[in-house]
Amino acid sequence: MKPVPNEVVEKQLEWRYATKVFDSAKVIPEADWKTLERALVLTPSSFGLQPWKFFVVTDPAKRALLKPASWGQSQIVDASHLVVFAIRKNLSVSDIERFVARTAEVRGTTVESLESYKQMMVGSLTNPSIDINAWASRQVYIALGFFMATAAMLGIDACPIEGFEPAKYDEILGLPALGYGASVVAAAGYRSSTDKYATLAKVRFKAEDVIAHI
Amino acid sequence: MKPVPNEVVEKQLEWRYATKVFDSAKVIPEADWKTLERALVLTPSSFGLQPWKFFVVTDPAKRALLKPASWGQSQIVDASHLVVFAIRKNLSVSDIERFVARTAEVRGTTVESLESYKQMMVGSLTNPSIDINAWASRQVYIALGFFMATAAMLGIDACPIEGFEPAKYDEILGLPALGYGASVVAAAGYRSSTDKYATLAKVRFKAEDVIAHI
Repeated sequence: MKPVPNEVVEKQLEWRYATKVFDSAKVIPEADWKTLERALVLTPSSFGLQPWKFFVVTDPAKRALLKPASWGQSQIVDASHLVVFAIRKNLSVSDIERFVARTAEVRGTTVESLESYKQMMVGSLTNPSIDINAWASRQVYIALGFFMATAAMLGIDACPIEGFEPAKYDEILGLPALGYGASVVAAAGYRSSTDKYATLAKVRFKAEDVIAHI
Repeated sequence: MKPVPNEVVEKQLEWRYATKVFDSAKVIPEADWKTLERALVLTPSSFGLQPWKFFVVTDPAKRALLKPASWGQSQIVDASHLVVFAIRKNLSVSDIERFVARTAEVRGTTVESLESYKQMMVGSLTNPSIDINAWASRQVYIALGFFMATAAMLGIDACPIEGFEPAKYDEILGLPALGYGASVVAAAGYRSSTDKYATLAKVRFKAEDVIAHI
């Protein structure tokens, strides 16, 4: 038994689009938002390290401040929910140790038994050839993809936003003091009937131009 | 009417895990694979530019060559399907023009009418402060997230793989001559009953540690 029929998956992925105008009167029900947060928590990452934090900005005053730092895009204030996907900056051994401790806790084992696993991660990630913040940013984009696909399955509109000033976001949200840095943003809610982009044909290259079989 | 019930979405995202041992006898049915390819095609990207190509490696001889370039991981040869997520290297004005031409084609308009849109993209992406390959790599990770979430909805197992040697992948698959570079890999298929990781508790930080409400 397939959990979700192919037609439903495809229909929802076709249905979604980068929503430019949200209906500011429509709020995502609590149960649906909880599912979206669950998707964020469950997003896979390299080594499972979750080098991130998701800042859900609900304070209208903060969102008003973020709008001019986002080229004035209306989604920042009009969407039901706004998520700032932030990386853990300069991920270090202590972050790896926190993850190892969590692994021991969840799996009912000892930190000591995970020592070689820890050393493998430390060896990989503290290698000077690794740009650890670039690595973390890529991980955060997995979460963005997970979030967008999950929203589509639930029939919730979303808009991924790269057009913003990370340094201003960091300052407005106080992220540097927490050790995080804004990487990408997503607005979520419901499309407005006035959004002309909702009915434009989706532009994708032909399958044969982006998928090759070797 | 919600397209997919919350419980189904959450159950499938809990069900998935980074599959370490695939059942090499089980092949993803053609219809399901087509849905996964559709998810790749439909993945959102910055400006919609799709700076990527997905190489589905079906040739067993090629997969045998990729295995030693992937720390010997068995998923490379045992999984039903293997996808190499590659970035368009050094994305340039001609790539933007190709996308504008496609937009005009799909939306039944002229390239000329999209000139200011094109110039906006050119201005953003040819800015010397942009590391265009790092940008493209982040986009590809959206596709990875989309692919993983979609596979989970269909009840298909997958394993994202960063542990491989991109330069060797590029050489084995002949990607440089095509203008692409391997960024990340995913194996997809069905978990083996012998995979001990299938029954281990999933390790995630507590929701309150990765989600903040501001």
